[in-house]
Amino acid sequence: MRHFLTLNDFSKDEILEILDLAKKIKAKAKAGKFKKYLKNQKLAMIFEKSSTRTRVSFDVGMNELGGHALFLSSNDIQIGRGEPIKDTARVLSRMCDMIMARVNSHETLNELAKFSSVPVINGLSDMFHPVQIMADFLTMMEHNKLGAVAYVGDANNITNSWLMLASKLGFELRIATPKDYAPLKSVLDLAYENAKISGAKIIITNDIKEAVKDAKVVTTDTWVSMGQESEKEKRIKDFAGFCVDESVMSLADKDAMFLHCLPAYRGYEVSEAVFEAHADEIFDEAENRLHAQKAIMVWLDRKRTRT
Amino acid sequence: MRHFLTLNDFSKDEILEILDLAKKIKAKAKAGKFKKYLKNQKLAMIFEKSSTRTRVSFDVGMNELGGHALFLSSNDIQIGRGEPIKDTARVLSRMCDMIMARVNSHETLNELAKFSSVPVINGLSDMFHPVQIMADFLTMMEHNKLGAVAYVGDANNITNSWLMLASKLGFELRIATPKDYAPLKSVLDLAYENAKISGAKIIITNDIKEAVKDAKVVTTDTWVSMGQESEKEKRIKDFAGFCVDESVMSLADKDAMFLHCLPAYRGYEVSEAVFEAHADEIFDEAENRLHAQKAIMVWLDRKRTRT
Amino acid sequence: MRHFLTLNDFSKDEILEILDLAKKIKAKAKAGKFKKYLKNQKLAMIFEKSSTRTRVSFDVGMNELGGHALFLSSNDIQIGRGEPIKDTARVLSRMCDMIMARVNSHETLNELAKFSSVPVINGLSDMFHPVQIMADFLTMMEHNKLGAVAYVGDANNITNSWLMLASKLGFELRIATPKDYAPLKSVLDLAYENAKISGAKIIITNDIKEAVKDAKVVTTDTWVSMGQESEKEKRIKDFAGFCVDESVMSLADKDAMFLHCLPAYRGYEVSEAVFEAHADEIFDEAENRLHAQKAIMVWLDRKRTRT
Repeated sequence: MRHFLTLNDFSKDEILEILDLAKKIKAKAKAGKFKKYLKNQKLAMIFEKSSTRTRVSFDVGMNELGGHALFLSSNDIQIGRGEPIKDTARVLSRMCDMIMARVNSHETLNELAKFSSVPVINGLSDMFHPVQIMADFLTMMEHNKLGAVAYVGDANNITNSWLMLASKLGFELRIATPKDYAPLKSVLDLAYENAKISGAKIIITNDIKEAVKDAKVVTTDTWVSMGQESEKEKRIKDFAGFCVDESVMSLADKDAMFLHCLPAYRGYEVSEAVFEAHADEIFDEAENRLHAQKAIMVWLDRKRTRT
Repeated sequence: MRHFLTLNDFSKDEILEILDLAKKIKAKAKAGKFKKYLKNQKLAMIFEKSSTRTRVSFDVGMNELGGHALFLSSNDIQIGRGEPIKDTARVLSRMCDMIMARVNSHETLNELAKFSSVPVINGLSDMFHPVQIMADFLTMMEHNKLGAVAYVGDANNITNSWLMLASKLGFELRIATPKDYAPLKSVLDLAYENAKISGAKIIITNDIKEAVKDAKVVTTDTWVSMGQESEKEKRIKDFAGFCVDESVMSLADKDAMFLHCLPAYRGYEVSEAVFEAHADEIFDEAENRLHAQKAIMVWLDRKRTRT
Repeated sequence: MRHFLTLNDFSKDEILEILDLAKKIKAKAKAGKFKKYLKNQKLAMIFEKSSTRTRVSFDVGMNELGGHALFLSSNDIQIGRGEPIKDTARVLSRMCDMIMARVNSHETLNELAKFSSVPVINGLSDMFHPVQIMADFLTMMEHNKLGAVAYVGDANNITNSWLMLASKLGFELRIATPKDYAPLKSVLDLAYENAKISGAKIIITNDIKEAVKDAKVVTTDTWVSMGQESEKEKRIKDFAGFCVDESVMSLADKDAMFLHCLPAYRGYEVSEAVFEAHADEIFDEAENRLHAQKAIMVWLDRKRTRT
């Protein structure tokens, strides 16, 4: 049985296999065909943090696959009130066929996976957001924008996930952050190790121009993630010059795509003009959460039933 | 594509067509037949305000139509935390087939509709509550109580919706409120304009007796809507004499029906005796939320797929 | 029509009939067969208190039976904001086929049942937790652990439910609590009355050893239920000596089973060692919530449709 906690647990072939499945499932859905791959299956969705896209995409996805998703917020279930995670994992494993969790600490996911007898999916943690990055890469493939990716802004769970994806698949990733906001060394070490095999080129810089120059894809994320609200003022100051505006985009490849995992804060990490100029790409990306996650769930189910 | 934000956007024929559809769908459901008009469709339900009837009736309705409803409270999704409504509209449009929203400000609905590529339904706003009034009129039709309607009490979103319905369909509507609680001029202007075509008779008065005399239907609503709790004491004083009790009902037609959209505050806008004497009508009205809304959703879907 | 509020309303034969149905439904489900006993039915689930197991087990159960469950928390519906329970009961009866409620006061359930025209199920009240105790007894049957049951700790709704079950079915129940935490006289009186017919042996003691000696089943529950947090310190002191640890279990039958309805507070009512040694039994018990409740819902539906 496999879990989906970080792309570092997956081989290049496995990642491409899931993306290929996503394309097929999406094409069928667009033709109004919803194959019930997960008929009668139940997905427990645990949310320690609130969410729009994650909630809707998993719920709709499970429904389209013939299954049923249960939304469990930290207000509604007792995971937030002293029940050990290992007990929650064992109870949910008895009643549900899969668990998706959006957690404050990645350790919660590891603990869930350790005690769960059903696959666990990372719906966002402080460390990684692999379902988002799968949707991002699916969007790049669909728009024929494979090439160097420039990530600009705060090195967070999204950045970490780009590092895992690029280093596994072997493409060029350039990350530009302010000086004190570089990616974690532990994650970089994993990426460099993976890159030895895949041939990925990883560039870490504080120079936004160096990162964006001729890039096929430019992407960013909020400067103030959930839980960092108290640092907001300082962060806005520190990230001056890291807003993806039209002058930044003009440095990239002339057909470069812009991606954003949302929610987007205009005037901060991206300008309104860049956002709206690339809205079709961005909302394709949002929609691809649905298709990529359906593929991930079907893939995990196959690994379970075939072994 | 059509939205369902206010009855002012609908013609008399369209309103009657939806009501006719509601009767048919209800009759089938009562016979245990649930035609899957909206098979595989997903309804996103956004709640900025809490709700029992709206939540349950849309969720059950969508289920009976073969679809799936997602309950998104302002605690659970990020619409309340700075994401522009236009982004929420575009994301939900990519994953869902219809959006229902219960909002503080009607402007939120207009913005959702502007950016949504799927139909948007008003599940209550500060200005209008059209799904409620459709259920009310369905109940009047079923009970053969077509005739003058007397609305007594606070001129709010329910009153505005009665004004739209009466002025479109052309029946007599009498609204009795305390002096400082009259309907909005902007809504009255729309109603008077509509009435020129439909022949509706609209009477605005501060005299409860004038309004209720020989009316076929008497109705009211809470004096203190959600968000007005701080004005409670003043309002209770100002609405003295506007409680629908047995003496008020005795002025109406001897077989007059009493409607209430619930929740009902006994001893304030209605007496316990009147409420319980008319409980069958009131709970028929509540149930008709389900049937009317199913018809609205099916009708909106037809308009989408046929054009 | 029948409700499921307390086992005191059921005969021995009825209880055994439901348990037998639970075994059959569970066996089918384990073989991947989900008979749609409640096709198109809707279950309204009201939660005044938060819950993991109750929420998931009823939602999954209804889904497996072909129906649809609606999760209504006190934040989301208006039952907490002054709407009379009798109105909520009548509205939900019009839109749903069954109501499950987890309530602060058992009186709320009685009121719901009084005004509901559909079956009402107790999902936990201050007085009784009958769906839990049905799951517990199902687990005892499956593990061939029928015999004396020792309940150790705080006399609460779980204890009351054991008193009803034992006194109806006629088995031996021993309850050991600290002096000031004995079961309610009103519940004991009911149990003693039932025991006259069933032959049940009910032992109430303050001596944990007397209760546990040679027992087939040892069980306990939290010392600090929801709402009692302010008494926590005093309670922990008062319950010294009532922790089910290995020395306590060594007094029971050598193959004795240990049950816990969860959440379990290690180091308080049970030791980590005892909990983990009996984890298979405990999580079977948790899973049996699902199967027992499915049987209860199917049974209630039969009583409705056959009369």
